[in-house]
Amino acid sequence: MKRTFLSGIAQCIFNLGMAYLFLGTAYASSVSDPLPSWNEGQVKHAIIRFVEEATCSGGAHYIAPADRIATFDNDGTLWVEQPMYTEVLFSFEQIKALMPAHPEWKTQSPFKEIAANDYSHLDKKSLMEVWVVTHSGMSVEQFEEVAKKWLATAKDKRFKQHYTSLVYQPMLEVMDYLRKNKFKVFIVSGGGQEFVRAYAEKTYDVPPENVIGTVLKTHYVYQKGEPQLINMPSILFIDNEEGKPEAIQLFFGKKPVIAFGNSDGDRQMLEWTQSNKGPHLMLLVHHDDAQREYAYDTQSKVGTFSASLMEEAKNKHWDVISMKQDWKTIF
Amino acid sequence: MKRTFLSGIAQCIFNLGMAYLFLGTAYASSVSDPLPSWNEGQVKHAIIRFVEEATCSGGAHYIAPADRIATFDNDGTLWVEQPMYTEVLFSFEQIKALMPAHPEWKTQSPFKEIAANDYSHLDKKSLMEVWVVTHSGMSVEQFEEVAKKWLATAKDKRFKQHYTSLVYQPMLEVMDYLRKNKFKVFIVSGGGQEFVRAYAEKTYDVPPENVIGTVLKTHYVYQKGEPQLINMPSILFIDNEEGKPEAIQLFFGKKPVIAFGNSDGDRQMLEWTQSNKGPHLMLLVHHDDAQREYAYDTQSKVGTFSASLMEEAKNKHWDVISMKQDWKTIF
Repeated sequence: MKRTFLSGIAQCIFNLGMAYLFLGTAYASSVSDPLPSWNEGQVKHAIIRFVEEATCSGGAHYIAPADRIATFDNDGTLWVEQPMYTEVLFSFEQIKALMPAHPEWKTQSPFKEIAANDYSHLDKKSLMEVWVVTHSGMSVEQFEEVAKKWLATAKDKRFKQHYTSLVYQPMLEVMDYLRKNKFKVFIVSGGGQEFVRAYAEKTYDVPPENVIGTVLKTHYVYQKGEPQLINMPSILFIDNEEGKPEAIQLFFGKKPVIAFGNSDGDRQMLEWTQSNKGPHLMLLVHHDDAQREYAYDTQSKVGTFSASLMEEAKNKHWDVISMKQDWKTIF
Repeated sequence: MKRTFLSGIAQCIFNLGMAYLFLGTAYASSVSDPLPSWNEGQVKHAIIRFVEEATCSGGAHYIAPADRIATFDNDGTLWVEQPMYTEVLFSFEQIKALMPAHPEWKTQSPFKEIAANDYSHLDKKSLMEVWVVTHSGMSVEQFEEVAKKWLATAKDKRFKQHYTSLVYQPMLEVMDYLRKNKFKVFIVSGGGQEFVRAYAEKTYDVPPENVIGTVLKTHYVYQKGEPQLINMPSILFIDNEEGKPEAIQLFFGKKPVIAFGNSDGDRQMLEWTQSNKGPHLMLLVHHDDAQREYAYDTQSKVGTFSASLMEEAKNKHWDVISMKQDWKTIF
């Protein structure tokens, strides 16, 4: 027993040594590079070092598999969120499709503006109203069908591709790398939980039970003797900002060890991860690549990365991922 | 490929055949009996047959591992709930401990009655008030500590044992058997999520993220610069009756394939499981063993098993587990 244990440590230390040696030199060209779409640099090295240490049984930074919880924001962290959140575009198109059944909307804000493709005056409250209206009043199965159907056909105007193709290859590699090392990978999104679930398994290999998002209350009813869950026009919780650690506690009852975000909405999730008494790593995707994707931060309406978040990241040693410099490929 | 596939089926069919042959005769004496604390009979056979078929790749009742979701009620299904839910006893003792800090309670119902050990007039509303008061106003970590401390010392009056020793051995075997066959085992309890999480991993081998229960809203705050989640005196949702399928959807986004309950509070969870278009199995523990545990149903204040539930179980072919006849040992 003791011998095996020591060999285990020796093996880890050897691996860590190899990782340290190769990082910064030729790790990327190595066959076993777990993150081939990442350029060599501080961020890639931090991720690999963290995983190597977390899985090094007997090492000082070992994390038991049960505690290897990784959380990822979705919009802007795993897929494109500009020029508007995909789910908001989905909601607008649902509103348009529902217009004939709601003649009263013709004179009501924000519906009349959406029908006229005038989105300029929509504030957060209006967007939330539209979100609630388009996600409620049907069973959870019906909503899933509507969302899947839309995702299978709708395309992004700039990239002329389905939205589910606009996911970041480097992040897919990180999720895969973590899963291979027995991390449990969760999406913790400000977006609608059922919307993200409609494509997360196929797109990210993340099953529905590992997707947390903003949710409506549901109501259990019988329709023709069969039980149904109906989405109600009432929010159970918003999974954004302080809602993220609150939802993480609700779903796991423990703190993540690694968390990825990209905007002010992820600040509290990263703080919560950093308050973990064990090893932890916090990262923020910074959109600074207008050519290959988008460049935005403080001024953006969508996915704001404020100056105070950048300041906090610096002070608290969170890793900031530069899309331009750290990512070899985007999609 | 085809040959391997056929061999797989052949192996399954052989296993199923063996299971059918042995069940009802000598399965229990077989070394490989996965449920040694269960007497031979319809219920034991139904569970084993279901698992054998679910894991028989290529068979007509195969279930992919990702969909092997098993849900268990807790009070009365996994551990003793008489003469009063353990968590209610915990709440009463917390109220008594808090009395000195709340002089106003001396003249207020239901606190003054609890202080006087007079529980006879407590209705559901009072119990809920007591539950909220004793579970809120502290951080999630503080609550966990309080619950763990109480569970480590408090003992059941009749059995003179810690409550965590009063868990049903036959159900522990079922949970183990399911996990070994790649089922994801979840507890879906009407009790407090954080209370059940405080002992579920050690007692049932069920990690916090697989425990769903009734929950309070939490509030993210900073204390001395450190983030904290404080339990608020406000219920987010009640995980009982129709709340069970609602919470199951919230947490998994898919229906269970096997569900165990024991009272009217579990009715909707079993109906929801039965509405699964794939294979499914529903079971109810019936407390009919006054000698070794308790015998109760329609008349009981705690864990009511109404006549209409028994009727529904018969009509819908749910398996009713007789503690007296089906269980060789209880604890």
